[in-house]
Amino acid sequence: MTTDNKTLSDETICAISTPQGVGGIAVARISGPRAIEIADSLWRGTPLTSFPSHKAALGHIIDPDSGEEIDTGVATLFRGPRSFTGEDTVELSVHGSLWIQAELLKALIKQGCVMARPGEFTRRAFANGRMDLAEAEAVADVIAASTRAAHRLAASQMRGDFSRRLAGLRDKLLDISALLELELDFSEEEVEFASRSRLIELATEIKSEVTRLADSFATGNAIRNGVPVAIVGDTNAGKSTLLNRLLSHDRAIVSDIRGTTRDTIEDTMEIGGTLFRFIDTAGIRETDDPVENLGIERSIRALADSRIALWVVDATDNESAIRPAENIINALAPDTRLIVVVNKIDIASGHRPQLNDLLADLLPQDSIITEISAATGKGLPELQAAIVEASGTGAVASDGVTVTNARHYEALTHAADSIGRVIDGLRSNLSGDFIAQDLRETIHHLGEITGTVTTPDILATIFSRFCIGK
Amino acid sequence: MTTDNKTLSDETICAISTPQGVGGIAVARISGPRAIEIADSLWRGTPLTSFPSHKAALGHIIDPDSGEEIDTGVATLFRGPRSFTGEDTVELSVHGSLWIQAELLKALIKQGCVMARPGEFTRRAFANGRMDLAEAEAVADVIAASTRAAHRLAASQMRGDFSRRLAGLRDKLLDISALLELELDFSEEEVEFASRSRLIELATEIKSEVTRLADSFATGNAIRNGVPVAIVGDTNAGKSTLLNRLLSHDRAIVSDIRGTTRDTIEDTMEIGGTLFRFIDTAGIRETDDPVENLGIERSIRALADSRIALWVVDATDNESAIRPAENIINALAPDTRLIVVVNKIDIASGHRPQLNDLLADLLPQDSIITEISAATGKGLPELQAAIVEASGTGAVASDGVTVTNARHYEALTHAADSIGRVIDGLRSNLSGDFIAQDLRETIHHLGEITGTVTTPDILATIFSRFCIGK
Repeated sequence: MTTDNKTLSDETICAISTPQGVGGIAVARISGPRAIEIADSLWRGTPLTSFPSHKAALGHIIDPDSGEEIDTGVATLFRGPRSFTGEDTVELSVHGSLWIQAELLKALIKQGCVMARPGEFTRRAFANGRMDLAEAEAVADVIAASTRAAHRLAASQMRGDFSRRLAGLRDKLLDISALLELELDFSEEEVEFASRSRLIELATEIKSEVTRLADSFATGNAIRNGVPVAIVGDTNAGKSTLLNRLLSHDRAIVSDIRGTTRDTIEDTMEIGGTLFRFIDTAGIRETDDPVENLGIERSIRALADSRIALWVVDATDNESAIRPAENIINALAPDTRLIVVVNKIDIASGHRPQLNDLLADLLPQDSIITEISAATGKGLPELQAAIVEASGTGAVASDGVTVTNARHYEALTHAADSIGRVIDGLRSNLSGDFIAQDLRETIHHLGEITGTVTTPDILATIFSRFCIGK
Repeated sequence: MTTDNKTLSDETICAISTPQGVGGIAVARISGPRAIEIADSLWRGTPLTSFPSHKAALGHIIDPDSGEEIDTGVATLFRGPRSFTGEDTVELSVHGSLWIQAELLKALIKQGCVMARPGEFTRRAFANGRMDLAEAEAVADVIAASTRAAHRLAASQMRGDFSRRLAGLRDKLLDISALLELELDFSEEEVEFASRSRLIELATEIKSEVTRLADSFATGNAIRNGVPVAIVGDTNAGKSTLLNRLLSHDRAIVSDIRGTTRDTIEDTMEIGGTLFRFIDTAGIRETDDPVENLGIERSIRALADSRIALWVVDATDNESAIRPAENIINALAPDTRLIVVVNKIDIASGHRPQLNDLLADLLPQDSIITEISAATGKGLPELQAAIVEASGTGAVASDGVTVTNARHYEALTHAADSIGRVIDGLRSNLSGDFIAQDLRETIHHLGEITGTVTTPDILATIFSRFCIGK
């Protein structure tokens, strides 16, 4: 199952590393054993072979077959191992026309390069020991991040914060192994019990840390893909108006007619550096309309899948709080934070005291109540602050290590199971040999994350989601 | 009218120079008197102020306000005047995420940069004497070029081929000025006539060169924007099938019903390195249908505007050549090359000898006849070769100097007028003073092209069509 990926590739790869399309400049990256030689065969200027590392120079890039100039550009040389991939690398910065980008790649391929596959530069950086697998995976996350929160998590992982945490766990697991051997050596002399309690203590620490990391995935995943926020409530409470207000544009159709929204409508918005995925839903009411009922089913499902629920209540209509209350409260997942949004406060001065008493009776303990006019925007900043607060993403950023990757989550879950078996084994006084097997499994699962154990299939899957040129 | 644009700007500008969007890497460019200082205020690594020119180094990019890391990246330093703009320039190459690109620009602006306007880097290169205006304009053309032919013209202009030709003309104009002064000095001694004939000879050479350059605009413009090719002929001759075949996809609706195409349908395709703009038209026939007649009017107009006309004839129906012949031949512009496309040869073995005789009688001298089956693709490569040949774009590329810019065309037309007046003046024995005025005007118009005379308005118009970051 373990494969050695630390061999240098014989091929020299090339790709355009800048975003697709036309721009002021585009950069082609060439990496591999023949990178300097191949780039030099296109180069008219100071020979690249004579460049020191990290030098840039202006020159002409020629199609060696036709002798025709492709462009005037800047070549920058990075001699391995002082490069991103660890191999000799040349970057050619040219005018960003489609024709030049295409011709440059064609000329490089004619001279012996092969087109880089998605993520191949990063895969080589991993293969050459420039980064471990978790750090390599974070490169794609850094590039995809569109918010501060998502960037922080990915950058922290790319810098190795997660890897260092895993290395710490691995060291502790090796400590247990050593103590277990000690125990075996002295087993005749009955020092067993003292050692076992120390081992259980250590293993429990590890399990708690592994579990905490696995649990952080719920938040990490929400930050990476957007925190799901369901907007629910009675028909005509102003849910679609609220959605449009939160998104700052008219995404959903709004009317005075009850039941206007039937499909769930979804769009994302960044608030305070975190991406939120708002899901406007059909109003919850008793109805005979079969299409509307399908919509209401979806509302309930969206509520169950959300991390935050905005329950919109009409301040001019106390019944709007009572009618859907049971359905909403029953559908809430245990982790979902509920924010009651008392809407239409611009036209409902008299109703509120009564409504607030009513809500106090209905709501779970940790619910938040905010007042807003979705129509005028009054109260919006307070609601946005409540949403950011409820997302819990602020706490994560200061901590640093949050799991955002489903593959890592799966490996951590397996590691938690096997360290759990270690603890059980220790408690049941199982023989050290059996316990050592579960310890090895735990180390193995953590090693899957950093890539000390991996397979070509796993690597292919991981790097296929990268862009070409990175 | 003349303004001095050769002053260095006090501002330091910044922009993302790579194409918009997400990619492996993005490059921010910073140029101006404080470029190194501002970039260094974000930089954690070897101080940029101590870098030699053309050195690249890896380091950390920090938001100096928050102290938070924006990214790890490579800085490359180009000290003025050894840079594109002629000013101190720093390029920061970072991971190409939207968040990093936005944060990096925000941090640079907080440190004192201003956002570069479109084309501002190139405008500064012009202002600092790194290139003349014609060369600067060609930078945008190089970036926009999507075919080999368009790239060749733009790259030639960017390298200064056109500017050198204009400099040669300017030298000749100055020669005439000198000779004219000589004539004035010796006017008492009646050497006038010998000098005048030499002057007329020189001025005529200049006029012929200026006119040739102005005339090349028709071809240059066609290469830049696509050579217009009208597809005309009788209804049901297979014009839309031919369009679809030339474009390699089903662009136009095809049916057996005469008069299916009414609107002109246009799409571009590169053949042999040149961009062609194919215009499928309504079949030309007598009809009472008012909509169809509007379409036929458009067919005639497309024909008049085209550089190449593909007259599609149905090989199974000799009448298809006779019916629209008069309309087509009358509408042809003098410069339009006519290619008769005898279509449906897959199902019309017996008809052709008779049709060929018929066509020989109808056609202008330099017409080309090709045979094709638009349905099967037979004969397509020969037709494509004929289209490339008829475009005359091959001849242009080897020549080098072809005018592609409407502004240059206008200036050349004015220069041709004023040098024409010089010739008239010389022939009519006008006083040297009057002739000198027209000479100065000619030099002025040529100077408009290279930017020796210009205004901020003209410059603003020229650079506004650039992308940001170049």
